[in-house]
Amino acid sequence: MSPTETLPIERVLQESRNASFTLATLSSEQKNQALLTLADLVEQQADALLTANAQDLQEQKDLLAPSLYQRLKLDAAKLAQLSQGIRDVARLDDPAGRILQRTLLDDGLELVRETVPLGVIGVIFESRPDVFPQIIALTLKSGNAVVLKGGKEAHHSNKAFYELAQSLCQQCPWIPDGWVSLLSSREDVKEMLNYPQYVDLVIPRGSNELVQSIMASTHIPVMGHADGVCHAYVHASADLAQAVAIALDAKTQYPAACNALETLLVDAAVADAFLPLFGNAAGSAGVSLRGCPEVCRVLPNVAPATDADWRTEYGNLTLSIKVVPSLEAAMAHINHFGSHHTDAILAQDPQALEQFLNTVDSACVFANASTRFADGFRFGFGAEVGISTAKTHARGPVGLDGLVIYKYKLRGAGHTVQPYVGNNPKPFLHQSLPLR
Amino acid sequence: MSPTETLPIERVLQESRNASFTLATLSSEQKNQALLTLADLVEQQADALLTANAQDLQEQKDLLAPSLYQRLKLDAAKLAQLSQGIRDVARLDDPAGRILQRTLLDDGLELVRETVPLGVIGVIFESRPDVFPQIIALTLKSGNAVVLKGGKEAHHSNKAFYELAQSLCQQCPWIPDGWVSLLSSREDVKEMLNYPQYVDLVIPRGSNELVQSIMASTHIPVMGHADGVCHAYVHASADLAQAVAIALDAKTQYPAACNALETLLVDAAVADAFLPLFGNAAGSAGVSLRGCPEVCRVLPNVAPATDADWRTEYGNLTLSIKVVPSLEAAMAHINHFGSHHTDAILAQDPQALEQFLNTVDSACVFANASTRFADGFRFGFGAEVGISTAKTHARGPVGLDGLVIYKYKLRGAGHTVQPYVGNNPKPFLHQSLPLR
Repeated sequence: MSPTETLPIERVLQESRNASFTLATLSSEQKNQALLTLADLVEQQADALLTANAQDLQEQKDLLAPSLYQRLKLDAAKLAQLSQGIRDVARLDDPAGRILQRTLLDDGLELVRETVPLGVIGVIFESRPDVFPQIIALTLKSGNAVVLKGGKEAHHSNKAFYELAQSLCQQCPWIPDGWVSLLSSREDVKEMLNYPQYVDLVIPRGSNELVQSIMASTHIPVMGHADGVCHAYVHASADLAQAVAIALDAKTQYPAACNALETLLVDAAVADAFLPLFGNAAGSAGVSLRGCPEVCRVLPNVAPATDADWRTEYGNLTLSIKVVPSLEAAMAHINHFGSHHTDAILAQDPQALEQFLNTVDSACVFANASTRFADGFRFGFGAEVGISTAKTHARGPVGLDGLVIYKYKLRGAGHTVQPYVGNNPKPFLHQSLPLR
Repeated sequence: MSPTETLPIERVLQESRNASFTLATLSSEQKNQALLTLADLVEQQADALLTANAQDLQEQKDLLAPSLYQRLKLDAAKLAQLSQGIRDVARLDDPAGRILQRTLLDDGLELVRETVPLGVIGVIFESRPDVFPQIIALTLKSGNAVVLKGGKEAHHSNKAFYELAQSLCQQCPWIPDGWVSLLSSREDVKEMLNYPQYVDLVIPRGSNELVQSIMASTHIPVMGHADGVCHAYVHASADLAQAVAIALDAKTQYPAACNALETLLVDAAVADAFLPLFGNAAGSAGVSLRGCPEVCRVLPNVAPATDADWRTEYGNLTLSIKVVPSLEAAMAHINHFGSHHTDAILAQDPQALEQFLNTVDSACVFANASTRFADGFRFGFGAEVGISTAKTHARGPVGLDGLVIYKYKLRGAGHTVQPYVGNNPKPFLHQSLPLR
């Protein structure tokens, strides 16, 4: 039975908070050994996991669209992959316990800024049950307690993963009860969002609506992105063939991704040359275009775009195109209509490139590369916790670093402040020390 | 006239947002030159500033307590100090434009993680008018636009500083109109808090009530601290004379500060030896004590503490004292009743020290040093933006670094994602490059 079926939410969150104090003191070795044990458990308890998943599949078989049904389904190969993924996380560097800064304030008075886990992370995700073991591996690696709420379609699977997480505490007794909790209803989530004193960060993974509704209903910091309205701008100096190839890749390579292209801006100076080239290529690739009047003039078969198109994340093979008079107009359009996720300029003029990279206010700004590169694994982070369009804490693709913060440790030998204040105060040394 | 007297708040915030795009592209030299000009303006316009301040003083002379009246007052010496402070900020390292990470993803595809300004900062502060020029210096240095609301007692002074900020745009035309805005009422602040799309961070500087009410009424990230319920724990292994000196310094050196001591925890093993020593010293220093029953047993003149005392920031020469059975009990008390600001252990046992520093979940954890060291200037940051008890973004004393975030710049040469996916994908290099 998951704890929220027997305990009030506040108690569940208090136990998460208590568990977080213990998790924060674990060594990298203790966390990694627990991760390897967790990977073994996923293999050893494969039968139980698949049985639970079969129950979900049985209950959902007439309710879910085929693509969602496929995402719900676990099999032996997927479980083996999940185990491997957990072992990969064990091999990553520990994001906690890193010394960021060391300063000798005065003789015998040393200040250290050191990364520490955030504490308790709330994660709300939709249908796919393999997200559960991936998330608990990342939160354990970073020393955080986690409170999860999965999609109700995967209810049995999530519960089986939750029980597996509980059994880890027997095999690795240094892992505290409460390291993983499972909420069972939307009402539970709503209640959790009222407890900033127990939950340090909420990560919603799912539809725009889910993310927006969570951002609008809590004072807990939220890491995520509602929209991914990504742009590419074809500058007057662009290599047109290259621009066609990048724009097509960005739109078609995986149109459902948040980093896929939604709006293509074309400089008026190259519109007549570029648009026919791109129109042909887009047609062959099955991309359906919506254009501003200027685009429709050059490509008469293109449907006219409405104002709503400039704010729309299609998530499919639809693309809006607009002709803009200048680099400045392109940047203003992106800063106004975009979602500050990922935007690219396609140009050969180095000044235009740098101006775009400096002025466009997005987490990822790319020069002559596809927006689809905006991804934690492609960036080399080893793991991706999510993609954030927030301006504070963590921005863009977020690796394990997004699950830690820092604390200041000051080690003295009886130091009081009095000698350093008033008339004739003792000066501080403020000497930067090597990080060890 | 300040802009909000003529423009709706949303327009003011939109202009701040637009200004932020320009500010983000300024070079360090441009920002520093503007800061030096600002410092000159404060000196040149001293008469206008003092005249405005005299109006405030006149209006408030029968309304404000003497200490608040003194804080409201500007004079030539204070203005000279303020100019010097602005010149000091010009000399600090630019927090924006720092390369945090460089990775070669593949040949010709280079990823850079670079600090950038947050964008628009909202700052709400109480009575003291010298906060205005200090804040606009810090936000300009970090490349942010700022929207300010000062105390109504300093209405005329703040307006004079606002006009001075406007005149900077004439002398330094690269500084955009809208780099500083001034709100004139609480209703304006309330409205600003509804616009996360225009304001990236809110910094409330004032009473606990102000900070709490702002935190509770916005989805914009807030940097600050409501309470400073700071603890010191006297461990069984403590040097008792040193412990007395540190606890007294932490309580009495400046009792109104947020990093002053509010609760002293004493290990039962040394209570009988420590309490009489401390009781005498506290008495001589004019500290009034409130104790748990065990404290009252040893020091019969001490008033009994109630449960509310363990959560109270006195801000004066009152101190609560509690005897605890163990290090674990001390840490549990601090994590439960504290405000996660600054807490200290006084001990000679190295294991106890490290256990405390690792387990206590506070921004600043100190070993054998006064809690009063928790301060941006004492930590060597050169400037302090505020002290944060949040768990994300910035924690503890916050320097200019707290006013920046980062973006990812990816520079390619026509790179598409397609070759790196599917069967037989091209591998990434993910080669870490020197930071230049």
